[in-house]
Amino acid sequence: MKRRKFVHQAAGITSLGLLGGGLLSACQPAPEACNGDQETARTGNAGETLEWKMVTTWPRDFPGLGTGANTLADYITRLSNGRLTVKVFGGNELVPPFEAFDAVSRGTAEIGHGAPYYWKGKAPAAQFFAGVPFGLTAQEQNAWLYYGGGIALWREVYAPFNLIPYPVGNSTGQMGGWFNKEINSIEDLKGLKMRIPGLGGEVLKRAGGTPQNIPGAELFTALQTGTIDATEWVGPYNDLAFGLFRAAEYYYSPGWHELGTTLEAFVNKTAFDALPVDLQAVVEVACQAANMDMTAEFMARNGDALIRLQQEHGVKLRTFPDDVLAHLRQITAEVLRELAEADPMSARVYESFSAFSQQVGAWSDISERLFLTERSAS
Amino acid sequence: MKRRKFVHQAAGITSLGLLGGGLLSACQPAPEACNGDQETARTGNAGETLEWKMVTTWPRDFPGLGTGANTLADYITRLSNGRLTVKVFGGNELVPPFEAFDAVSRGTAEIGHGAPYYWKGKAPAAQFFAGVPFGLTAQEQNAWLYYGGGIALWREVYAPFNLIPYPVGNSTGQMGGWFNKEINSIEDLKGLKMRIPGLGGEVLKRAGGTPQNIPGAELFTALQTGTIDATEWVGPYNDLAFGLFRAAEYYYSPGWHELGTTLEAFVNKTAFDALPVDLQAVVEVACQAANMDMTAEFMARNGDALIRLQQEHGVKLRTFPDDVLAHLRQITAEVLRELAEADPMSARVYESFSAFSQQVGAWSDISERLFLTERSAS
Repeated sequence: MKRRKFVHQAAGITSLGLLGGGLLSACQPAPEACNGDQETARTGNAGETLEWKMVTTWPRDFPGLGTGANTLADYITRLSNGRLTVKVFGGNELVPPFEAFDAVSRGTAEIGHGAPYYWKGKAPAAQFFAGVPFGLTAQEQNAWLYYGGGIALWREVYAPFNLIPYPVGNSTGQMGGWFNKEINSIEDLKGLKMRIPGLGGEVLKRAGGTPQNIPGAELFTALQTGTIDATEWVGPYNDLAFGLFRAAEYYYSPGWHELGTTLEAFVNKTAFDALPVDLQAVVEVACQAANMDMTAEFMARNGDALIRLQQEHGVKLRTFPDDVLAHLRQITAEVLRELAEADPMSARVYESFSAFSQQVGAWSDISERLFLTERSAS
Repeated sequence: MKRRKFVHQAAGITSLGLLGGGLLSACQPAPEACNGDQETARTGNAGETLEWKMVTTWPRDFPGLGTGANTLADYITRLSNGRLTVKVFGGNELVPPFEAFDAVSRGTAEIGHGAPYYWKGKAPAAQFFAGVPFGLTAQEQNAWLYYGGGIALWREVYAPFNLIPYPVGNSTGQMGGWFNKEINSIEDLKGLKMRIPGLGGEVLKRAGGTPQNIPGAELFTALQTGTIDATEWVGPYNDLAFGLFRAAEYYYSPGWHELGTTLEAFVNKTAFDALPVDLQAVVEVACQAANMDMTAEFMARNGDALIRLQQEHGVKLRTFPDDVLAHLRQITAEVLRELAEADPMSARVYESFSAFSQQVGAWSDISERLFLTERSAS
């Protein structure tokens, strides 16, 4: 295999825009990327040792996300007893973070790890597979993907790019963001300069706010200097790591814009098809196991970080008022309808997603909601 | 490998007691079991083809549970490219359902699939790994097991039996049961003959009820003839299949006694240790992937079945009043405390479980609870 120099490793975090930031930027060439490198997938005859490259949209070893990509690579390597090894590249090490999709599509790398809504400029319907505002919880999202027809549609959406998608990880519920004033009514969102990318940003805009898209590593400074008034990032685990509690007083929930964001692996179909059938199973089952692992990790570490934010850093937790959420939810329905009207594939995915939401939502409503409500009151 | 005749296959469902019934019955010999069969685990040198037997506590192909065991067997077989094949036996095919633990312990089979609370008579602490009344949701339970120290403790609990445990599947939230009268106060539980096994049954007893333990297949008749006044079973998916809606008018939630029951695989440690390292990885990663698969299936099918129960069968959904739940919760705390006082290992597990519950519960409270509440109101 060719060896490549790692460059821009330190810059990875700057251009990350996690989760949702700077998604669809044009290719910003790094020396080793965007130059039409057309390394073809190797064939995988039984007995042959293969090495795959995994490009990611995360900085190397980024907590929960980069480490989750490492877990996936480790599973594949161990399951195959080294017949298929996977080398993980952080964002900007092989290609810039948001070139990962194209890089795997053209075979520069065989597999990638990212988040589906990053590719909305190429395939608007991809956003549903990440999750949409006021959408599904992590557990509901997995039910739709694995047993509600979601993955079959997702495969259709990625097929034109010669990619096969897999759910690999879930951030679980995100937080609604960091604010320096309390949000008591929808009026308080008017004119608010807030870092919130993607569909959530579009919803804020229609509510009178000014969505901004700022890469993750710049968030702290932007918030502290007043370049922005507010920001969302991920959840307690990742927000604690960035020290956002030092730049804002109030920490809001729920994260109405990202209820349980599905992360993904995408595999070059030519490379996958060339694998012997047992290594194909290795890739698929490893993805499913890594999905479980990452979801469990986010749940566990978010809980721990939330307590530290409160007890060690005195963060003031607040919840958005019901009428604010209801208003944002109404706008979200409009945004999703328009998305479906503008793109036939999005219309099909939206139909499946909506029908399944009704069904699984009724179940969550009389099971988890009731229990969590009872537990909260006790 | 020896071939065995399948016997009592049809009887499997009768003795199932799912989830939680008849757990700790003494061995009831079937011709091919309980006779000290000491088949030893085969060694697993690289290149050798192995066949493992999987005994289960479910009837063969039982929806969600038996089929989940099949999925795990299929993953192992495919990942290993047939170097390790797994043959699944329903309850009573090789050993009676609740002899599965002993059968794998002594090496009659190499792997089993069941639910941890079935073995409370041998190891009381096992109940925490299945989940306890007013405990954790499926997602929280996985977070504790994988990232909160749960699995390490579980391994300690099963070590004396030469078994290694893995979480494999989750029923997601269960339902609170089928009743022929409304439950308006704790008084309505007094004298109530209800099929509810395990810790939930102990709680009902202390609330004045009369818990019964009746195998699943007998539930319908027992409820229809008035042998019992009420029953819980699993959730909409499995309850619909048993036709319980024909024998009772009211269907209650939440299932306070089983919020998200973790199912399990248990592997004979001698057999596991004899595997080459890559096949060890195959077993472990397959378990984790099957855990994701089964959980997603239960979520999806429970949602579908709930709608059918209401729309096609006119089932009346009811929720337990808050004060009834609060009372049952208080009793549960007593029961768990006594369990911890009576058994040092249970005390250690309870401590870990309780500490993690505080942490992850705070996170669920401001994420999933808030969102599910908002969605329910809309």
